Amino acid sequence: MSRFFSDKYSLLTPYTPGEQPQQMKYVKLNTNESPFPPSEKALDYAAANTRPLNLYSDPECAGLNRLLAEAYGLSPDEVITTNGSDEILNFAFMAFCDANTPAVFPDITYGFYPVFAALNGLPYREIPLKEDFSVAPADYYGAKATVFIANPNAPTGIALTRGEIEGIIKANADNVVVVDEAYVDFGGESCIPLIHKYKNLLVTQTFSKSRSLAGARLGYGIACRELIGDLNTIRYSTNPYNINSMTMATGIGVLLDKPYFDANCGKIIENRAYTVSRLRELGFEVLPSSANFVFARTPKMEGGELYRRLKDKGILVRHFDKTRISDFNRITIGTAEQMDILIDALKMLLEV
Amino acid sequence: MSRFFSDKYSLLTPYTPGEQPQQMKYVKLNTNESPFPPSEKALDYAAANTRPLNLYSDPECAGLNRLLAEAYGLSPDEVITTNGSDEILNFAFMAFCDANTPAVFPDITYGFYPVFAALNGLPYREIPLKEDFSVAPADYYGAKATVFIANPNAPTGIALTRGEIEGIIKANADNVVVVDEAYVDFGGESCIPLIHKYKNLLVTQTFSKSRSLAGARLGYGIACRELIGDLNTIRYSTNPYNINSMTMATGIGVLLDKPYFDANCGKIIENRAYTVSRLRELGFEVLPSSANFVFARTPKMEGGELYRRLKDKGILVRHFDKTRISDFNRITIGTAEQMDILIDALKMLLEV
Repeated sequence: MSRFFSDKYSLLTPYTPGEQPQQMKYVKLNTNESPFPPSEKALDYAAANTRPLNLYSDPECAGLNRLLAEAYGLSPDEVITTNGSDEILNFAFMAFCDANTPAVFPDITYGFYPVFAALNGLPYREIPLKEDFSVAPADYYGAKATVFIANPNAPTGIALTRGEIEGIIKANADNVVVVDEAYVDFGGESCIPLIHKYKNLLVTQTFSKSRSLAGARLGYGIACRELIGDLNTIRYSTNPYNINSMTMATGIGVLLDKPYFDANCGKIIENRAYTVSRLRELGFEVLPSSANFVFARTPKMEGGELYRRLKDKGILVRHFDKTRISDFNRITIGTAEQMDILIDALKMLLEV
Repeated sequence: MSRFFSDKYSLLTPYTPGEQPQQMKYVKLNTNESPFPPSEKALDYAAANTRPLNLYSDPECAGLNRLLAEAYGLSPDEVITTNGSDEILNFAFMAFCDANTPAVFPDITYGFYPVFAALNGLPYREIPLKEDFSVAPADYYGAKATVFIANPNAPTGIALTRGEIEGIIKANADNVVVVDEAYVDFGGESCIPLIHKYKNLLVTQTFSKSRSLAGARLGYGIACRELIGDLNTIRYSTNPYNINSMTMATGIGVLLDKPYFDANCGKIIENRAYTVSRLRELGFEVLPSSANFVFARTPKMEGGELYRRLKDKGILVRHFDKTRISDFNRITIGTAEQMDILIDALKMLLEV
């Protein structure tokens, strides 16, 4: 730290992203990427439709926002697109929390929430998950805080129903409820159909998982136009050209190839069911997942040890050295071949 | 504004980007883009070397940072890359200003500085440019504030020498001096050679102007490793994957084709000299520019009127409706053909 760094950040601990080895020597099941590249059709569209790079990208992101709005039967001013969904989440912490309105979220959830709160100097509370690692909706009723719920939750993979989330939204009419649906396409119920009913609902999604564009950095928020207007005030005061032209065109290309998206989501759901049943055969406890990952532990080996032993065998999974969950590893669902490599490695390691 | 929007932003006025018409019916001389697309060589490199998009981009941006560092004879930990230079500027406001350390910058400069200050709730002071619209270095001595100097300045185009900036850096040993060199490649003197001498110097640059990548969104900061460390603490607490894989590869491709970059800078400097002399023939006062734009006024027509009349003729320039400079228009230097279209239009409008 330099002597010039503002005291307000002296205790700031940044988010630790999962390892991103640049050489592909690993079976990479650690950061919940899609194992499938974007389709040729999507990439061809992008190559043919990227605005010349010497010109600025469209700050209104009009083409992409229009298509996203159409996909959900919404108006473009109910959509905001961002540089990954981390950016829309940070904007939501900025816009809807302050000294008088803290943030509230589960004790076990996306690890960036407390970092965003700390970055913005915001008070926050963490509410413990139940013993079974699910969110208890009633714990969030009348929170007097901006509520952040990842649904399905990470790293557990457990989803609430739309009805359960609606209960939280109703019971917080004077506060915004942010539903982070990064993983919703793998079996969750989206709350987007509720945005015309509730003025205090912001849904965030991402192209990083089900849409195979982690490396293109594209996220979005869906809400009533008043909330989107607030978020755009932040966006235009931070980085009006936040989405580059290549990502914009690639995002459109991906949206235009819905059959490929549907097929990939189907494959992940299928591979997840296979993986869960094989892990259970090996003696793992696996939490019920609606996401493109599973959260699993075995009485035969401590979580950190298992993570390291798998890494030695060329398989990367994600371990969180954190109270309550250090027994577990989060395993991304990849191709059927990748999951078989994992299962074989586990069999050898655990001698089962 | 929704009733949920934090009071801290109730007075926030976002930055207004220059018009970005998505149909190319205009001669576009309003946002200081390069008229030259990136070279085929650069684009071919990017196409062949972009990491598969389903995988996250490298959060360390290692390849690009290494190449940038080499270009300046520096170490990679003296470099940080960002989503456009707006992001590095915002990070600098966040990291090096607070309630006790205000920001200071000229009254006429890049319009985003006061927005970044307001966004982050930071106190700031504006120091008037001299009558001739140049920065008086001594006005910034002992500022007891984080100093932001665009060099060359925008929208004036006027540059200070490296020696003049060094005077400001020396006279603010207890504060950071940020030198925003977005336009330095068109005739300014970069302060990058000073970063090993001064621990309080941050230089920011961009690929948006001289490197023809406005639409790819790529900026960077150069400083001693302690300052870069602070900025990375902010970056990893905001958006660790801030640079997407396509932009990363395109940036590398552009850096690898230095002859094209040098030739384009040369053409812009040549076209600028031509444009200045033609404008002066038409009776314009033109400030001495070291940038890829000129700032000019004519006694024959008010600035806003001239802007509108040019737009009617299909030529976009930038007018700022602001005290001291509302007589002027900022005109980007484009190709020789574009500048001739401008000059012909001005002749007709002004009947000279």
